[in-house]
Amino acid sequence: MARVLLTGASGFVGREVAARLLAAGHEVHALGRRAPTVTGVVHRAVDLLAEIPELRQLGATHLIHAAWYAEPGKFWNAPENCDWVAASLRLARAFAEAGGHRMVVAGSCAEYGWDRPVFSEDTLGPPPQTLYGQAKRSLFELMSAAAPVLGLSLGWGRIFIPYGAREDSRRLLGTLIAARADNRLAEFSTGEQIRDFIHVTDVATALVLLLESGVAGPVNIGSGFGTSVHAFVEEAAMIAGYGHQVKLGARPMRPDDPASLVADTTRLTDMVGFRPRYTLSSGLAEALGHDG
Amino acid sequence: MARVLLTGASGFVGREVAARLLAAGHEVHALGRRAPTVTGVVHRAVDLLAEIPELRQLGATHLIHAAWYAEPGKFWNAPENCDWVAASLRLARAFAEAGGHRMVVAGSCAEYGWDRPVFSEDTLGPPPQTLYGQAKRSLFELMSAAAPVLGLSLGWGRIFIPYGAREDSRRLLGTLIAARADNRLAEFSTGEQIRDFIHVTDVATALVLLLESGVAGPVNIGSGFGTSVHAFVEEAAMIAGYGHQVKLGARPMRPDDPASLVADTTRLTDMVGFRPRYTLSSGLAEALGHDG
Repeated sequence: MARVLLTGASGFVGREVAARLLAAGHEVHALGRRAPTVTGVVHRAVDLLAEIPELRQLGATHLIHAAWYAEPGKFWNAPENCDWVAASLRLARAFAEAGGHRMVVAGSCAEYGWDRPVFSEDTLGPPPQTLYGQAKRSLFELMSAAAPVLGLSLGWGRIFIPYGAREDSRRLLGTLIAARADNRLAEFSTGEQIRDFIHVTDVATALVLLLESGVAGPVNIGSGFGTSVHAFVEEAAMIAGYGHQVKLGARPMRPDDPASLVADTTRLTDMVGFRPRYTLSSGLAEALGHDG
Repeated sequence: MARVLLTGASGFVGREVAARLLAAGHEVHALGRRAPTVTGVVHRAVDLLAEIPELRQLGATHLIHAAWYAEPGKFWNAPENCDWVAASLRLARAFAEAGGHRMVVAGSCAEYGWDRPVFSEDTLGPPPQTLYGQAKRSLFELMSAAAPVLGLSLGWGRIFIPYGAREDSRRLLGTLIAARADNRLAEFSTGEQIRDFIHVTDVATALVLLLESGVAGPVNIGSGFGTSVHAFVEEAAMIAGYGHQVKLGARPMRPDDPASLVADTTRLTDMVGFRPRYTLSSGLAEALGHDG
């Protein structure tokens, strides 16, 4: 049991992390503007972009940093990505100076140059396609060099494509869930892209295990399996009983969308010891059931 | 003539930049804790690590960012490098939001992986050997991706090995100047390393020309010539008439010191139009004369 600081605790991934941390017996202190909805979390209201609070009195030894600018459709190339790099560095410094020693950051598959179908951690490849990806990559590279100087053990989870009941209605599964709630048509592209989908609860479990494991360096957080977007949508539509209102091919493919984003999960499995709770089918059933 | 913001205006490079900007007819507004010694500069006292001031009212269109943590012997692997990345990002954001459009940052040859004798801008190479180098590189990569989003034109000067009359007594020429002032022995290593030395006034001229040129991307700032450290020391000792008190080989070579750091200055010459004022001999004569 540890005293854990958590940022982004009211976000899509962060709220699940808060629940997993509590379930694992940790004491959770959330830093952020909005109060987390998860019961049992201590909240300190603070705008991390404006100020980093004094952390000495709290005496937290662990930190999961899941906060970032994440407005769907906007975050990829928003200037706010720079603000979050700055805030993350200031947070890491304050945490280390307050005696913290283990930090895990929510990174992203967007850190990779999307030039391959399957990504292992040691090869970042060409520059990221987005400012969001570059911001996370730059933060990773700098913090990896800084961690020994700061006296921090740094774990870095590169999250692939999370899905879940509470995802934003502008995201993939969110589109279906929102359309079903309103009994509207749910429209998608032809969905030929291959993605590594992982249930958000499994993402949270992986981040908490990574925190506890003490494993240093980058670790992909994904299922290890590639699924086409259309197969994902078709599976979800079938489980939801909503296939009659789902239209694939109604929207254009984005020309800059990479063909395949799949995680090599060797490190996650062998070093962190993660085992997924959900298959794609059971995960979609859980996510769609929550909405029902 | 432009209204130019300048950080680091009381530092070794920054004070020369302030003088060059004024000489070129610009209006110079210095942001920093210490008041600049150069007459004619408007100073706003601010600790950039603690707060970024509101810049809208000033209406500056140009910015040269030369401030950084630079304590000799300590800066290479100091945690303050993280603080300066954060402050630089916040400054760039505030400058862009205030209507600024042209920014030049003082980068470093330490951004390169030191695996070659001569460095051209397009190949950063393996990771930097120091946290300082990684911090400047990470900032460069992120700001290069962010500049179009922020609406900034970004020039990035990678400064090689500056020398001058006012350099710190823990630096190379500074050691000689300080020893001479006290009539002490000046001790050096065998000095087999090859370095690209450039007079600090030429560095400042190059940064100001880079600002004015509008050239985007990285530009090496060096002489383009490699000189061994022992040849540099011997030349300086001869000019200073202090050869009897100079001892080469009295200190160990640092095992991590790279064999050669020389700039490819094609871009500086052809794109920025820089021509040096000083040769090594005339530059050393100027630097040592100032001390006499």
